[in-house]
Amino acid sequence: MTVFHIASPDTGIACKLQQKIDNLAKPEGSLGVLETVAMQIGLIQQTLSPSLRKPVNILFAADHGIADENVSKSPKEVTRQMIFNFLDGGAGVCFLARQHGFQLKVVDAGTDYDFMPDRRIIHRKIRKGTRNFLHESAMTVSEMELALQYGADIVTECHQGGSNIISFGEMGIGNTAASSMWMTCLTGIPLAACVGAGSGLDDEGVRHKRHILQAALDNYKGDRSVLNVMRYFGGYEMVMATGGMLRAAELKMTILVDGFIMTNCVLAASKLYPEILPYCIYGHCGDECGHRKLLEALRATPLLHLGLRLGEGTGAICAYPIVSSAVRMINEMHSFSKASVTKYF
Amino acid sequence: MTVFHIASPDTGIACKLQQKIDNLAKPEGSLGVLETVAMQIGLIQQTLSPSLRKPVNILFAADHGIADENVSKSPKEVTRQMIFNFLDGGAGVCFLARQHGFQLKVVDAGTDYDFMPDRRIIHRKIRKGTRNFLHESAMTVSEMELALQYGADIVTECHQGGSNIISFGEMGIGNTAASSMWMTCLTGIPLAACVGAGSGLDDEGVRHKRHILQAALDNYKGDRSVLNVMRYFGGYEMVMATGGMLRAAELKMTILVDGFIMTNCVLAASKLYPEILPYCIYGHCGDECGHRKLLEALRATPLLHLGLRLGEGTGAICAYPIVSSAVRMINEMHSFSKASVTKYF
Repeated sequence: MTVFHIASPDTGIACKLQQKIDNLAKPEGSLGVLETVAMQIGLIQQTLSPSLRKPVNILFAADHGIADENVSKSPKEVTRQMIFNFLDGGAGVCFLARQHGFQLKVVDAGTDYDFMPDRRIIHRKIRKGTRNFLHESAMTVSEMELALQYGADIVTECHQGGSNIISFGEMGIGNTAASSMWMTCLTGIPLAACVGAGSGLDDEGVRHKRHILQAALDNYKGDRSVLNVMRYFGGYEMVMATGGMLRAAELKMTILVDGFIMTNCVLAASKLYPEILPYCIYGHCGDECGHRKLLEALRATPLLHLGLRLGEGTGAICAYPIVSSAVRMINEMHSFSKASVTKYF
Repeated sequence: MTVFHIASPDTGIACKLQQKIDNLAKPEGSLGVLETVAMQIGLIQQTLSPSLRKPVNILFAADHGIADENVSKSPKEVTRQMIFNFLDGGAGVCFLARQHGFQLKVVDAGTDYDFMPDRRIIHRKIRKGTRNFLHESAMTVSEMELALQYGADIVTECHQGGSNIISFGEMGIGNTAASSMWMTCLTGIPLAACVGAGSGLDDEGVRHKRHILQAALDNYKGDRSVLNVMRYFGGYEMVMATGGMLRAAELKMTILVDGFIMTNCVLAASKLYPEILPYCIYGHCGDECGHRKLLEALRATPLLHLGLRLGEGTGAICAYPIVSSAVRMINEMHSFSKASVTKYF
């Protein structure tokens, strides 16, 4: 199994960071979360003058065997259709990436479709979709290993290209179902509270999805170890993102976390390497049932609450300007003495 | 008294807007608040393809007689010191304005300081600070009239310069005290719930502030009519912003609302002309006690919850990228048919 060497940021610089923030000409704490984020990025980058360079959103797409059980409102073909929409610039993540200067990398992690060679796609197909975890393990050990490695390698390339902040997105019909399984197994929160409407199931649809997932849980004979859970309930795109996140933390990059599915990847990654958590900034709390509870389990404070539930990285990228504001704050605001303002607190 | 001719946006176009939004290739409603904001701006601009042009933040600064009663942690001199910090680009609002392409206009509405003529300041000083409303009316009727007119005129100039989205900020030691008086008189919410720590009072300081403001309320012999309340408890910067907001709505501009003080201006403006409300987008819910309750009273849904309490327009400008995302969404996302994606709901 790929090994990652992740170290928590050294907190020796924390006092100096706080001092710099408190000396900016404003009432202490009055820039709220911007101050918290500035502290976090200062720690990650070990500097009083952090910077954000070449943001990237890696979007992993894959299909899921469990989709055969009608756990999603969307047909499987939507996964590949949306990949073409990403390439054409027409999807939700595309306008946000353009707006905030993100490079968008689209990875075929395991779509059930034979793409023609296309330089706009990063071809890392493990298999044409996972197996159906109602009956068997979604992937093999070696497939999982490969997915972790592929994800990590793509992040290494981004880092070599000069990026120091990265978000991860996903596209995969059925992946909220897989995510609910990860969540219940890795947090102990009852399955029912982990299952939501995904791309728009009605109440009856959600009941059916819960029923299927409960059956899958009952059929599961493995233990609750992270690697077994990841492998059994799968998601090539989810495992690849998990590998990418671990590598990003290893390389001391700031990780912008998207919605329900990507937060489950943080959960899994942090069960393997708890030191990843200080590198994570949570973009938003989404509308998918379970996301709020999952964020609470991670003791995470998301930046935005906009009722998003699209995935693709949209909620992470949407939050980028807040992160950028925090960095500007600590670099650009004048101190009380420079501004000749009476320090009034 | 200046009269404004404000018409609520015609809702005839609402169905077509919703149709366009629902036909974008994403699960229905999955972009949450971005969809709501796109609808609102489409209605304001009466188009299916809205745009944001030349955003401006007008920052009104003034002093308050009530500051003599130690209702703020900050000395009065901070108002003028901060004006120089705005001009030097070192304040909180400055880095946000640079980040999001806002023009920053700084208006001396009534600072207790004799500025040299300076083309970087819009000189509209009504008086060197309001009178102390513990004992007397903060301003006269003609001063209020002039402030409303000045505020309106500055917005007209912005509109003539091509702007169609505008935010308002303030600087004025003592202005959370004045705002608490507006809030309690105009909403009926008990004074205690309207008073907070401002720039950082401790518990004892907040108790003293409540005590002083209760005494002022007891001394007040006027009625609760909007104009009387505005005049008596004042704030030249607040009245000027109120005039600016009313003119902005008259000119069908989108109004980005900042924190506690500016939300009180929306409150006052909407008591005069309820038709202003559909033009307002609330940037954030701040940390100043009372802001959340005030937003509830206005049935407002703020975009951000970042614990900001700096004023200056910071919370409004911070939210601008969300508004901009909404506009990009409706203009740039491909429809299901254009993207050849199965409409899966």
